[in-house]
Amino acid sequence: MADPRFFNNSGPFTLARLAEEAGAQLAEGSDPERMIRDVAPLERAGLEDLAFLDNTKYREAFRTSSAGACVTKPQFADEAPAGMALLLSDNPYKAYALIAQALYPRPPIVAGIADGAVVDPAAKVSAEAEIGPGAVIEADVEIGDRCRIGPNAVIRRGVVIGEDSEVGAGATLSHCLVGRRVRIYTGVRIGQDGFGFAIDPAGHVTVPQLGRVIIEDHVEIGANTTIDRGAGPDTVIGQGSMIDNLVQIGHNVEVGPGSVIVAQVGISGSTKLGRLVVLAGQAGLAGHLNVGDGARVGAQSGVMRDVPAGEDVFGSPAMPSRQYWRWYSRLMKLSGLKGG
Amino acid sequence: MADPRFFNNSGPFTLARLAEEAGAQLAEGSDPERMIRDVAPLERAGLEDLAFLDNTKYREAFRTSSAGACVTKPQFADEAPAGMALLLSDNPYKAYALIAQALYPRPPIVAGIADGAVVDPAAKVSAEAEIGPGAVIEADVEIGDRCRIGPNAVIRRGVVIGEDSEVGAGATLSHCLVGRRVRIYTGVRIGQDGFGFAIDPAGHVTVPQLGRVIIEDHVEIGANTTIDRGAGPDTVIGQGSMIDNLVQIGHNVEVGPGSVIVAQVGISGSTKLGRLVVLAGQAGLAGHLNVGDGARVGAQSGVMRDVPAGEDVFGSPAMPSRQYWRWYSRLMKLSGLKGG
Amino acid sequence: MADPRFFNNSGPFTLARLAEEAGAQLAEGSDPERMIRDVAPLERAGLEDLAFLDNTKYREAFRTSSAGACVTKPQFADEAPAGMALLLSDNPYKAYALIAQALYPRPPIVAGIADGAVVDPAAKVSAEAEIGPGAVIEADVEIGDRCRIGPNAVIRRGVVIGEDSEVGAGATLSHCLVGRRVRIYTGVRIGQDGFGFAIDPAGHVTVPQLGRVIIEDHVEIGANTTIDRGAGPDTVIGQGSMIDNLVQIGHNVEVGPGSVIVAQVGISGSTKLGRLVVLAGQAGLAGHLNVGDGARVGAQSGVMRDVPAGEDVFGSPAMPSRQYWRWYSRLMKLSGLKGG
Repeated sequence: MADPRFFNNSGPFTLARLAEEAGAQLAEGSDPERMIRDVAPLERAGLEDLAFLDNTKYREAFRTSSAGACVTKPQFADEAPAGMALLLSDNPYKAYALIAQALYPRPPIVAGIADGAVVDPAAKVSAEAEIGPGAVIEADVEIGDRCRIGPNAVIRRGVVIGEDSEVGAGATLSHCLVGRRVRIYTGVRIGQDGFGFAIDPAGHVTVPQLGRVIIEDHVEIGANTTIDRGAGPDTVIGQGSMIDNLVQIGHNVEVGPGSVIVAQVGISGSTKLGRLVVLAGQAGLAGHLNVGDGARVGAQSGVMRDVPAGEDVFGSPAMPSRQYWRWYSRLMKLSGLKGG
Repeated sequence: MADPRFFNNSGPFTLARLAEEAGAQLAEGSDPERMIRDVAPLERAGLEDLAFLDNTKYREAFRTSSAGACVTKPQFADEAPAGMALLLSDNPYKAYALIAQALYPRPPIVAGIADGAVVDPAAKVSAEAEIGPGAVIEADVEIGDRCRIGPNAVIRRGVVIGEDSEVGAGATLSHCLVGRRVRIYTGVRIGQDGFGFAIDPAGHVTVPQLGRVIIEDHVEIGANTTIDRGAGPDTVIGQGSMIDNLVQIGHNVEVGPGSVIVAQVGISGSTKLGRLVVLAGQAGLAGHLNVGDGARVGAQSGVMRDVPAGEDVFGSPAMPSRQYWRWYSRLMKLSGLKGG
Repeated sequence: MADPRFFNNSGPFTLARLAEEAGAQLAEGSDPERMIRDVAPLERAGLEDLAFLDNTKYREAFRTSSAGACVTKPQFADEAPAGMALLLSDNPYKAYALIAQALYPRPPIVAGIADGAVVDPAAKVSAEAEIGPGAVIEADVEIGDRCRIGPNAVIRRGVVIGEDSEVGAGATLSHCLVGRRVRIYTGVRIGQDGFGFAIDPAGHVTVPQLGRVIIEDHVEIGANTTIDRGAGPDTVIGQGSMIDNLVQIGHNVEVGPGSVIVAQVGISGSTKLGRLVVLAGQAGLAGHLNVGDGARVGAQSGVMRDVPAGEDVFGSPAMPSRQYWRWYSRLMKLSGLKGG
């Protein structure tokens, strides 16, 4: 079980209840009243634990698991060991995630303004929001119901945060409008000036950055990530996008809904990503590019041209992944070394 | 117009006044009393807006723009649409930046020490400086006139900050001397120990880092960037350099005046950059290198050798850019794939 | 001498005392009562300074140095200039580090809870610990003797920190157990959720991250580095490891003892490093890999496969370094350009 110093287990629950939480079907012959206390991986799960099987690679572990219950795809059901209860879902990992959320819910909101927080009288803070110690909330800020603002976070003048959103400890927000159910992690920087100036050997001249950052609903933004505000247009993070730690997003960038941006990626100014784009770790994108819906950029790739929808690219400079690996393998052969 | 939640427009101004702010010439036939309320791009500007044309690529937008006024180079003046007032400058983007600064000046300093700030009695803080809520100012710190120290920023013992400088919310400074008109963004870390230790399998031994960080006048340092103090010599950021977000600058590094360092660049210890060097995003420089005046390093490049003044380099390992692209194109052909 | 604004020199000491601090031998003929006030590099050291010679490259500077004393290897002793006292050690840089630590000890702990700190009554904070202004210490936290918690740092519920450890200004810790003599720099983020979710075009579903971060004794973690907690297993940083600035460490990663991780490295989830692994700057490691004891990964390398113990790898995708450089050199020749 997860370390009780840090996690509160809210179980046990009946299998029927967990099936409902997960949107999964109880398999025939599985007891709906069976009690489940925890989640665990297949190899370590015991009689009161629920595990999941998503990937065919773990079928052997499934066949020999002692888990009391398992959520899996219908086609694997026949291989379950005797006595294992089954929940069936087409997306077992998602079902598992929902069950784990039910067993380990977020700590409840402690509504009110903590000791040592500084809240401007002209801020509109919901009475149902939690404002941590040392947090600073400036004038004209609006904070919605059930928001959680972490200790020592700073919310600057005029920022709006929708219902059920969280801002991590030590994060700073300015010039932005944040949607609902957004999770901003510790140390995130949103809304500072973009990197814009007129080059002049006698002293570069800063160009006022007059746009904002728009964070749509259900976005997550990882620790110490930086998102600059627009220069005139806005910087936009589309609904449901997941952004990892230490990512840099330049001014005027638009990230389409449901995109996934892994740690240490950098996106230069005015580049636009479509829906469900995936950027793997440490990838870099030049400015003013278009990356189409569902495109995927490999780790450490350097994108210097537009990427069509659905394309996978890799390498620095990036090219279509299939082409990259052909190229790489031929170069290995040409140079007399073994192919990749 | 920029969102009034976040920006205060101080206009309108006469064209004559804006010409003066920008160091630009009013073109013959342009009315000096014409009132300008805002800046906007050529395609969206209206009768009370000022736009700019710098790059020949936007000439068509210029010819058909409805902007009331435009700042441009003298050679484009003939192509202006009827009724558009013109300001003439050899550096229209710089002129535009100065006009935008006049229309959207920084918020005024609110002199004094905010609620919840902790200022050591042995600190010398100008009565004209603004110290935000939750900021911590330790003993023997000196903060000049019209400085702005953001909420929850931490200025450690002995740090000196010159006039008209800003430290962003949540930034932390130690062991450093900061000049005038410097802008340090949110979450920046300056002056911590460099990464120096004697390797010993029984336990590495930290080498005391006995230098400082010197930030010269008019430098900008982007959000969550880290600048380590010197090991014995100082780490130096030269006058007027512009540093973007999430950049790492190691101990003893010297950045020459007017240099431009884009996001996520890393510079290893003791490397020296000349004047007006440009490092594009995610570039990495090994330690103990010299990069000459005006050299340019491409995005994601890995510099392992000195770079002569004026040279452009690209690739990892980096080589002269022209050579890189010739190499790349030949490899594409050799491998039977299309050239780059 | 180091700038007294920032550093307190606790010298002078006799050479005999410094030999003892360093575990070094006083050479025959060197006066044990000679007084040493400071450390300095060979070229700049004067009669009251101690320098070191480790690398044969600096022998000429050694022969002509005016340093009053020098720590070096026995084999260089004969080349010392007349009048220079010598300390002999097989690891002169380590000996130098220990002497510099004696001359410039860390500032003493100022025990107690500073003004403006917010400490939960249910936290157990040693009376010998120093809690800086604006620090937030939540319930059930344990902080050991002689710990130093910087201004505006945030230690969340249940975190345990061992004796003699430091947490830098503005750092945030949650879901972690920290050992003794650990140094966590400014702006570090430890224990936040790992990047784990079930992909669903209708809205990705976050998977609760139920593990912790374990930081063993004598680890250093550089400024603005991020270390995510485990998803179920723990994320572990092994004893004596040195981690630089802006590093990303994903969930379930294990870093073996004595490893060295240079700035801006990224390690993806569930990858395991052995003992004494070195990852150079901006390297990236894919997830679920094993990197053996003593392996070394070059700067900007992209590791996509396991690395055997003792191997040096380089390139993106990474291959054994010797192979990489052979490959590179052949490609340079094949393309008609000069070899590397």
